Amino acid sequence: VAEPIITLTTDFGEDSPYVAAMKGVILKVNPQARIVDLSHQIPPQDVRHAAFFLRHSLPYFPPGVLHVVVVDPGVGSERAILYICGGGQHLLVPDNGCWTTLPMAQAPDLEVIHVTEQRYWRQPVSATFHGRDIFAPVAGHLSLGVEGRRLGPGAKAWVRLEIPPSRLEENLWRGEIVFVDHFGNLITNLPGVSFRDSIGCRLDVELRDKKLRPRCVRAYADAEPGEIVVLVSSADTLEIALRNGSAAGRLGVGSGTAVQVRLPEP
Amino acid sequence: VAEPIITLTTDFGEDSPYVAAMKGVILKVNPQARIVDLSHQIPPQDVRHAAFFLRHSLPYFPPGVLHVVVVDPGVGSERAILYICGGGQHLLVPDNGCWTTLPMAQAPDLEVIHVTEQRYWRQPVSATFHGRDIFAPVAGHLSLGVEGRRLGPGAKAWVRLEIPPSRLEENLWRGEIVFVDHFGNLITNLPGVSFRDSIGCRLDVELRDKKLRPRCVRAYADAEPGEIVVLVSSADTLEIALRNGSAAGRLGVGSGTAVQVRLPEP
Amino acid sequence: VAEPIITLTTDFGEDSPYVAAMKGVILKVNPQARIVDLSHQIPPQDVRHAAFFLRHSLPYFPPGVLHVVVVDPGVGSERAILYICGGGQHLLVPDNGCWTTLPMAQAPDLEVIHVTEQRYWRQPVSATFHGRDIFAPVAGHLSLGVEGRRLGPGAKAWVRLEIPPSRLEENLWRGEIVFVDHFGNLITNLPGVSFRDSIGCRLDVELRDKKLRPRCVRAYADAEPGEIVVLVSSADTLEIALRNGSAAGRLGVGSGTAVQVRLPEP
Repeated sequence: VAEPIITLTTDFGEDSPYVAAMKGVILKVNPQARIVDLSHQIPPQDVRHAAFFLRHSLPYFPPGVLHVVVVDPGVGSERAILYICGGGQHLLVPDNGCWTTLPMAQAPDLEVIHVTEQRYWRQPVSATFHGRDIFAPVAGHLSLGVEGRRLGPGAKAWVRLEIPPSRLEENLWRGEIVFVDHFGNLITNLPGVSFRDSIGCRLDVELRDKKLRPRCVRAYADAEPGEIVVLVSSADTLEIALRNGSAAGRLGVGSGTAVQVRLPEP
Repeated sequence: VAEPIITLTTDFGEDSPYVAAMKGVILKVNPQARIVDLSHQIPPQDVRHAAFFLRHSLPYFPPGVLHVVVVDPGVGSERAILYICGGGQHLLVPDNGCWTTLPMAQAPDLEVIHVTEQRYWRQPVSATFHGRDIFAPVAGHLSLGVEGRRLGPGAKAWVRLEIPPSRLEENLWRGEIVFVDHFGNLITNLPGVSFRDSIGCRLDVELRDKKLRPRCVRAYADAEPGEIVVLVSSADTLEIALRNGSAAGRLGVGSGTAVQVRLPEP
Repeated sequence: VAEPIITLTTDFGEDSPYVAAMKGVILKVNPQARIVDLSHQIPPQDVRHAAFFLRHSLPYFPPGVLHVVVVDPGVGSERAILYICGGGQHLLVPDNGCWTTLPMAQAPDLEVIHVTEQRYWRQPVSATFHGRDIFAPVAGHLSLGVEGRRLGPGAKAWVRLEIPPSRLEENLWRGEIVFVDHFGNLITNLPGVSFRDSIGCRLDVELRDKKLRPRCVRAYADAEPGEIVVLVSSADTLEIALRNGSAAGRLGVGSGTAVQVRLPEP
């Protein structure tokens, strides 16, 4: 039988001892646990970034994996810690909405538990590092087979992240940049499917007050060096990219910037 | 039985092939070894940073894990390589003091071995990369069950890192910032226990020539946005923090900065 | 029997969900796969950097490991994906030459397969993320024992990376800086063996238009603080270094800079 897999997603960076301490605690509880790093480079306290990150990575994992997320600006406050099961996925997260845009949040068998049972925690619990003192030991115990309902009572309410809306009016899409990736590609919330027929056309794009008229292409490699293009991202939304360069750097925009794109006349 | 776990802590970064080469060598010696990355982002040659990192991560690991540390400004010189066992912990480190502030350095069963037996090394040994040519193959052999005493003779002396002192005079604590974490939190060497009764009070703080009067709070979330506060760190020392921001950036100070904090009159 | 090992080398960074998505897909195909991160910090689209990275890390791994490389400026174009076996090594790479400077490229049993069989891919295949949709699932299937020849037909031609030449004329070596490591050490393509007899001497070095006369030393620790020296790198070539500092930063040069070094008169 496979060893239990625990993934870690944090904003701790790798120059501080925090991730290492969590790994130590997990392995002390369950030396057989297989820890898989997803990221420790979520921008500090950026719940929205974490939500996009999780939305576009966790659904690819097999059922049975336990995903631990510590992007937690509310650490030490009254915010809850949640253990969530649904559609075969298992998450341990702070109650800040980082998980509510995942498909599993709509699972018919969704179960949300408020993690309150201190017998699975390290003592004493630091007010600044629940990753080490609550998340890690609870994850270790879960990987040993402790049942979720032993962790605390069911939760009936939780924080939900609002997804920025996009809308189509006549042939004008309005939305925003929801993520800037490591390459500087600008990922919007406009549905890619609306632009599949525009490949080969130029589109009118407004980014805040900048007006562009990029080509819509199929792949980065279809762009000329130095050319800004739009294409369908791997998240199936419209993406603004600069071939072998950073569109974010070139255009000086980032996450949250309003974007408008006019569909070509049919 | 669990596979042997080897952790890696280096200042190699991840853009260079050095960590990958070490992993290759370890796995060539013992393909069953489970390698766990602790950090490859220790600032270059910063032994003091490494010591804090290790002090606040290694004690959380279970016994039996082998911890390999390559932050090694003396590579290629006469500095020794040490294999250290104590209190169930196992370390392979350059003799630069990075480990001497760990609790295990005080273990009654402490054993320190000077790693000199070349039969467990890669040949030829590069004068600039002992991580690949000595640390990695020795770690691989240890994980296969080679006994520590086969690695070389016992060591009687080793470099010790001086811990910066803190002291209380009347009701004034004097110490320094010993670590700046990824978030820009300033970790001092003033004992947290002295400040537990000050929660809710304002404290007089001097940082080099800056005078502050921050509130002492329990958790980051008790601070207002943009407010500098002090609180007890997860290392159980006094910490200076800025909610959802970098105190280091705001105050322009770093590791080594002198700090004074006056306890409130009782 | 050991679990199959899959290594990952990408330019994806860790703030984006791309690496995590690949890990999810691999583990969904084969939950027993042991994933080992080599680097996700290859500079974006820098095939030459990737080639040096692979050249100086992959040869240390044992046979049987599968190495997956996604540094892929041509994603979505007609560039091929190759599965390569030779000398016991196994690689899955974009056809951009990143692997052709490896010793395995000269293996007598070299086999290069053009990965075209879509039954092992995720569907639909994004034009911007073959890492998730082709590399990861194919790697998972390979780790389950799928034979390479099932992935597609043999390839007869592939992109080769030109290695920048170095040459000796009388006693003057001409070459270039081929890699700048995390510490700022400048790795040249001049063969280290030519300089072994120069240890202790000063050498005339020209870096673009800068003239230096550094000492040739054996190890970093033989340099004075703040002294630029040359020494034989762990890649067995001449390296220009600054003790406990960045030679790249100090000298303001990088990869591709021409370098000339005069051997001392015999």
